Order: sequence, then structure tokens, then C-alpha cells
Amino acid sequence: MRRATLHQLLAPEAWHGPGLSPVNQAVSILILLASFIAILETEPTVRSLAPGLFPLLEAFFVTVFIFEYLLRLYAVGEDTRYRGIAGRLRYIFSFWSLIDLIAILPFFLGFLAYNNAFLLRLLRLLRMLRLARLGRFSQAWSALADALHSRTHELLLSVGVAGLLLLFSSACLYVVEAASQPDAFGSVPRALWWSIATLTTVGYGDVTPITALGKVFAGITAVAGIGIIAMPTGILAAAFSDAFQNKDNTQGD
Amino acid sequence: MRRATLHQLLAPEAWHGPGLSPVNQAVSILILLASFIAILETEPTVRSLAPGLFPLLEAFFVTVFIFEYLLRLYAVGEDTRYRGIAGRLRYIFSFWSLIDLIAILPFFLGFLAYNNAFLLRLLRLLRMLRLARLGRFSQAWSALADALHSRTHELLLSVGVAGLLLLFSSACLYVVEAASQPDAFGSVPRALWWSIATLTTVGYGDVTPITALGKVFAGITAVAGIGIIAMPTGILAAAFSDAFQNKDNTQGD
Amino acid sequence: MRRATLHQLLAPEAWHGPGLSPVNQAVSILILLASFIAILETEPTVRSLAPGLFPLLEAFFVTVFIFEYLLRLYAVGEDTRYRGIAGRLRYIFSFWSLIDLIAILPFFLGFLAYNNAFLLRLLRLLRMLRLARLGRFSQAWSALADALHSRTHELLLSVGVAGLLLLFSSACLYVVEAASQPDAFGSVPRALWWSIATLTTVGYGDVTPITALGKVFAGITAVAGIGIIAMPTGILAAAFSDAFQNKDNTQGD
Amino acid sequence: MRRATLHQLLAPEAWHGPGLSPVNQAVSILILLASFIAILETEPTVRSLAPGLFPLLEAFFVTVFIFEYLLRLYAVGEDTRYRGIAGRLRYIFSFWSLIDLIAILPFFLGFLAYNNAFLLRLLRLLRMLRLARLGRFSQAWSALADALHSRTHELLLSVGVAGLLLLFSSACLYVVEAASQPDAFGSVPRALWWSIATLTTVGYGDVTPITALGKVFAGITAVAGIGIIAMPTGILAAAFSDAFQNKDNTQGD
Repeated sequence: MRRATLHQLLAPEAWHGPGLSPVNQAVSILILLASFIAILETEPTVRSLAPGLFPLLEAFFVTVFIFEYLLRLYAVGEDTRYRGIAGRLRYIFSFWSLIDLIAILPFFLGFLAYNNAFLLRLLRLLRMLRLARLGRFSQAWSALADALHSRTHELLLSVGVAGLLLLFSSACLYVVEAASQPDAFGSVPRALWWSIATLTTVGYGDVTPITALGKVFAGITAVAGIGIIAMPTGILAAAFSDAFQNKDNTQGD
Repeated sequence: MRRATLHQLLAPEAWHGPGLSPVNQAVSILILLASFIAILETEPTVRSLAPGLFPLLEAFFVTVFIFEYLLRLYAVGEDTRYRGIAGRLRYIFSFWSLIDLIAILPFFLGFLAYNNAFLLRLLRLLRMLRLARLGRFSQAWSALADALHSRTHELLLSVGVAGLLLLFSSACLYVVEAASQPDAFGSVPRALWWSIATLTTVGYGDVTPITALGKVFAGITAVAGIGIIAMPTGILAAAFSDAFQNKDNTQGD
Repeated sequence: MRRATLHQLLAPEAWHGPGLSPVNQAVSILILLASFIAILETEPTVRSLAPGLFPLLEAFFVTVFIFEYLLRLYAVGEDTRYRGIAGRLRYIFSFWSLIDLIAILPFFLGFLAYNNAFLLRLLRLLRMLRLARLGRFSQAWSALADALHSRTHELLLSVGVAGLLLLFSSACLYVVEAASQPDAFGSVPRALWWSIATLTTVGYGDVTPITALGKVFAGITAVAGIGIIAMPTGILAAAFSDAFQNKDNTQGD
Repeated sequence: MRRATLHQLLAPEAWHGPGLSPVNQAVSILILLASFIAILETEPTVRSLAPGLFPLLEAFFVTVFIFEYLLRLYAVGEDTRYRGIAGRLRYIFSFWSLIDLIAILPFFLGFLAYNNAFLLRLLRLLRMLRLARLGRFSQAWSALADALHSRTHELLLSVGVAGLLLLFSSACLYVVEAASQPDAFGSVPRALWWSIATLTTVGYGDVTPITALGKVFAGITAVAGIGIIAMPTGILAAAFSDAFQNKDNTQGD
């Protein structure tokens, strides 16, 4: 196969047809499959069903991904930016190429996690991050991302307001509840756990104020939590509304 | 009664008056009644009040629904698409006719569930699904459905983003909490239960992280949950706003 | 004082100045005070501080309200609709006059609740309902109510969708969880309690599914709950946006 | 250094360059640092790591803030409004200057809290309130604040509706649940704790109704809670949408 054809099949931006090239479609499906299996593998009851199967599957996926990585490295020479050895080095350190590398590495780091359950779980998490490779193939984001981007300033402000409310309600509950519940409200960072659960209206209920004053502050925090949800929602609604209308106007002209 | 009159009374699209024909109004009320009784019947304390009543009522409803089904099958001959035996067969396998059949079948499958509590409950669920028959009579959906439809792409994207966040937060909590809470966070699929409860801000609190690092990740997840709610809300708000304005403009011209 | 002056002071629509007449301002404050005291009175620790005070205060408020009621009945004769005895009877059975009566009655029904704690609490609730009398004085609603009213159809539809989802998720959890948790999921009406807490994202956590299949259905329900919140929010946002723009346009012309 | 230069460096409104002057940038960073350390200091495990460090750091911050306070007092003479001794006194009692003073005071009130854990915690809270000093440097608020301000009326109304719902649902649960759960629902103010947790959809689950009637009322309350969230969100969305469009129109002209 000629290198130019290979480049067209591998680089999404070089593909002339609509959607993805057949090769990238296959790669996408493999990434989804590998991630799904990495998720399943974490469950001990599933792992015990076929103890030998999962390392085998992993070896297969990694072999394919290495092969794909080398092909991309070879074919990218078609791109004027990545020609020659210096160009290839530049490609290796480009964003998506690094993501591709990170998708392969966990396999070779497996020996590090030998007999260390935490590192083993961390490696499995890295394996799941292969999903990030799909980002290379996706142009669907843009409309949503643009709407978000146009209101970054307002969204950051509402995050700031939320942060101040979070701190302030934690500090208030620390003042009034620390004496009766030192474990849960003994310091501001500790009270933050309750404060986040309340302001986001998650409300686990594993920690709740028990003093009357604590309940008064908690009630005010819960009500403020509605504002914390309403503000970004309102900003996003307005941003999307603008984005949709602009699109419709552009299409209408 | 002539078949043409019957067809007008039974087929919602053939009725010339406003709303539903008297026959379809009666059928709608019967469907609501049958569903309400099917719901009540699941409660043992209610069932024990009149053990013989519920099978009797069910037999009555099914008799009426069979009679209605046969009438519809006869009257649909007025419709040129469903004329003759081949046409009647085509009608039997049309969407709403199949729904009508599903509303009758559970009665005759009752013997299958003999002495099997799970199947019995499943049959009762099927009986409640009769409510779906009301969909045939309803044209009120369209405005809402159109608004949803016009933004399918954006809504799917936000579902995708939510799915990735769900996976990622599950994986993070699996990494940091699996050692201390193997039952609840021992695998990614297990951690998913906690992750869904947190990202949707339901927050049951039956499972919560106990390590400091776990609480930090959980806090970030809870805050991200606000975005998960804000995004579809914003998209829907924008979609409805557009739909209402278009309607008003059209009426204004 | 002449009856015409009295009528102007008592009937909000007859008052020529801005806001409320001094008499109605005083009545409003009394209503708020009476409600606040009725709320406080329910707390045993507060009641025990001054056992004799609360019946005395109640007697005072009721005396004033009766006096006010009789004055209104006398002064309303200025209104051509309520002239003469037939007119007065018509006034007594008008909406706001009945509300005024309900605010007085609990006092005279007190003997009914003698030694019956439940009826006593019910009477206290009726006393708090005096707040409804404030509705007579308020014209501030209209803008908000109009925005809600213009989208009644869409809001009802989203309530209908929510109701169906509620029923369906209850029925699903009844099917899969009834065997392991008969108390909480033993019937559809019982499962409804869990279902409401989940779909509204309240999530008490007093009842949660324990089977794997139950958790899968619960997860789907929780995600659907976001839609249940997003839909009315979106509809209201669009309705308010329209209402504000129309107002601004009208003012701009 | 000349007083005019000093004034330009200290007063944000006198600075000609973009953003903040280098001095105010340094002050901002010091405020953030001091607040962060005040938060950390509340945690006993952190405090025990370096028991002597935190009082030392606090002394350092306060020294700097006093020095800054005196410099501001000296330099403000450049402003015609605050010239002379009478002007300086007027400055001392101006809003932001009082905030500056409150940021210094907790240090000198430390002796009051000697051996009183509650007062000590209160002083730490005051120390965190130094964050409020950042408000002096921020003009970023205005767009968000304007959008909120333009709909104050509607937002207050929705707060009022929420308040009435809160009272009403508390009173209903007080009536039906007081007999079985006197601690949690024994009075309307007690039931308010449950009511706030439910209407804001926080749902801790530490208190839930147990009677059938109580669950019915609680379900209605939870559903009403969606409206409580949807209304301010809708109002804010509409307000932001208007604000963004006005800004775009102004820029477009």
C-alpha cells in the first residue's frame, strides 16, 4: 500500500469522504471494546470466570495499538509538518500522539504494579483513559464547546461565587457544630465535605448538623444551593439559545 | 350500525369532530381504570380486602378489550390500506395494533406464572403497560417532541459527556476506595452505583467515600454533577424558547 | 366615619393611592404576626415558656379579625354588586370573603379538638392558612402567573411524562426488588415512595435497591430524573424569556 | 515615594494601567494566602504538625495589613473627598475601609477567646472573611449583578412562593407525623428542617416520614421542589439571555 493512501486512511483530517475512514472506524471500535473489557476486568467476579482471558485480550489490544502507532508514525511523513527525523520527533511529542502512547504504556508498566493493589488499579484506570483517543476522531464537539467558550467569563464567575459560598458555609458550620461533631465539622476542610454535598443538592446524609443553629445555617446553605444550580444553568441556557439562533440566522441568509 | 360509522367512531384520524369520539373517550377511561386497578392489585393489603374481585375485574376489562380489538379489525376495512385479508394481516402487525394485542395477552399468559412470583409480577407490569395504548389517541405530544427532536444532536452529546464523566469518576473512586470498601467500590461497575447517585445529585448516601482522597474526588464529581444537570436544561430551555418564538411568529404573520 | 371612606380603606380595588391603604397595611401585618405566632405555638418548648400567652394572643387576633370582617361586610354595600341583603349574602359567599371566614372559624372549632391531638394540630394548620388572606392584597403575581399560564399546556404535558416515568420505574423496581425487600418494594404504590425520591433527585436513601438488576433500573431512573427537572425548567425559562421580551418591547414602543 | 504615586498604586480607581497595580496584586495574593492558611489552621492534624508556625504567620500577615492600612490612610489624602482630618475620619468609616479594619481586628481580639473554643472558632471565621477585601479590586461582577438586579422582583416573588410552600409542607407533615415522630415533626419549626431538605432536593434522609399519609404529602412536596428549582432557574436563564443579547446588540451597532 502506498504511504499516501495509508495517510489518508489514518489521519482524520486527510480523509476526503464523510465521517471516518474504515481504518479509523475499526480503531474506534477497538478502543471502545478495549475500554469496555478494562472496565469489566476490574470486577473480581467477572475476572474469576476466565482468569486467563483478560491478560490475553489486553496483549491483543496492545499489539494492535502498537502496530497502529508505528503505522501512524510512518504515514505522517506525508504531512509537511512532520517530514524527516526531526519531524517525526515533533509528531511523537504532539498532543494526540502522546495520548496514543499513554494508551500503550500501561501494558509495559504492569511489572511495576506487581503485588501492589493500588498501582494495579491505577494502571487499569490508565487503560480506561484510552477512551480519550476517540477525541481525535470527533468534530461533533465544536457547537457545544463554542457555546460554553463564549460564556467562560460568566461561568467562571459563578464558579467563584459557588466557591465563596462553599467556604463560607463550611466556616459557619465549623463554628457552630465543631463542639458536638468534631469528626465531621472539627475544621473547615472537614466541614467542606458536608458543604459540597449540600450546596450541590446531593445530600448524602452521612453527615448532618445536629444543633439548632447548625440546622439554621444548613437550611440557608441548602436554599443557596438552588442559586448555585440556577446560575450556571441560566448562563448555559442563554448561551445555547444565542448559539442556536445565530446558527438558524446564518442558515436562513 | 354501518361499518363506515363504526370506523369513524374507532379510528381517531377518521373522527371529524374536535377531540376524541365518544367510543374512544370510553376506551380511554377504561384503560386508565384498568391500569389504576392493576396498580392497586399489586398491594397485598388491598388484594386481601377483596380476593375475588380483582380477577373478575381483569376478566371484564379483557373481555371489553377483545371485543374492541375485533371491532377495530372489522372496521379498519374502511381504510384503503387495510382492505381484504392481506390488509387485515398488515393491520394486525401495525404498531398500534400490536400494542392493543399486548394489552390483551397478559390475561392468557396467566397460567405461565402459576406459582412463580417473579413472572406474576412481570405480568402485572405488562398489564400496566396498557397505558401505552393511550398514545394512539394523543396528538398533544408533537410540539414538545419537535423541540426535543430539533436538538437531538446536542442532547446526545451531553449524554455522552455525562457518560464519560460517570465512567471517569467511577474509575477514580475505584482506584482510591477499593482497598477500604471492596463491596461498594471493589470494581468500576460497582462504583458506578455511587457515581450515578452523585452525578445526578440524587445522593442516597447508602455508599459514600471514607478516605480523604476519595472525598476530594467525590466533591469534584458532585460539582461536575451540576454541569450534568445544567447542560441538558440549558439545551432544552433554548430549544423550547426557539419553538415558542417560531410558533408565535407564525401565528403573528 | 362615612361608609364610602371606609370602603376605600378596606377594599384594595377602591383605594386610589399607590400600594395598600393604611388599614390594609395594618391588617397585613396582623396576619403575618398571627401566622408567625401560630407557627411558634406548635413548638412545645416555646409553648411551655408562656402557657397562658398563646390563647390570649389568639383571642386578640380573632377579635380583631371578626371586627374587620363585620366592617368589610358593612362597607361593601358601597359596591353596586353587593348592595342590600341579597348582595351581602352574595358577598359572604364570594371567594375572598370565604377565606376571611376560614381565618376566623378555627377559634370557634377549638372545643371540637378537645383532647384530640390530631384535630388540635389540624386547627393550628388552619390558623396558619390565614396567610392566604394576603392574596387579596397582592397584584404582584400577575407577571409570573401569566408566564406560567401561557405554557400550561406544555407544563401539564411534562407533568404527564413525569407521572408515566414515575409509574413505570415503580413497576420495574416492584418486579425486580419485591422478593428481597417486600416492605419497601412489595407493591407498585409502595415502590412509588422510592421512585418519587429518585426522580425528583431528592434521594433520601431510606429505601434503595439491593439487587444488581434493581440498581441498573434505579440508575436509569436517576438519569431520567435529570430530564424530569430539565423539561419544566426549560419550558419555564422559555416562557419567562418571552414574557420579559414582550414587556420590554411594549415599553420600548 | 511621592504621595500621588502611592495613591495611584493603592487606590484601584486611580490606577491608569489595565487590571490591578503591582501593589494591589501583591495585596490580593497576600489576602488569598492568609485566608488559605486560616482555613488550614482550623484542622487539628495540620496545626499539630507545626504548632508554632501558625501564630507567627498570622502575626506577619497582620503586620503587613496594618502597614497597608496606614499607607492607604496616608495616601487617600490625594482624593479630594478624604482631605484633612475630617476627610480621614470619613474615609475610616467608608465601606471598604471598615472591611480592611475588620480584617485586622481579629488578631487583637485573640485574648478574648482565651480558653473559649467557640469564640476562638468565631475569630478564625472572621480571619477568613478577609476574602471580602478582594471585592474592592473586582469590577468583574457588574454584568452578572445587573442581570440579577433586573429581575429582583421576579426572583423575590419566587423566593416568596418557595417560603409559602416550605411553611405549608412543614405544617402538613406536622399534622400527620407529629404523633409518630415527635422529635422530628413535633412542631412546625422542627418539620421545617425536613421540609427544606426536601424542597431543595437535598434529601439528607436523616428524617423521613413513616406514615402512609406523611409519605403522600412528602411526595407532593418533592414534586413541588422541582418547581422551586425550575422557577428561579427559568427567571435567571431569561435574564441572562436578555443581558447577553443587549450586549451583543450594543456591540453590533
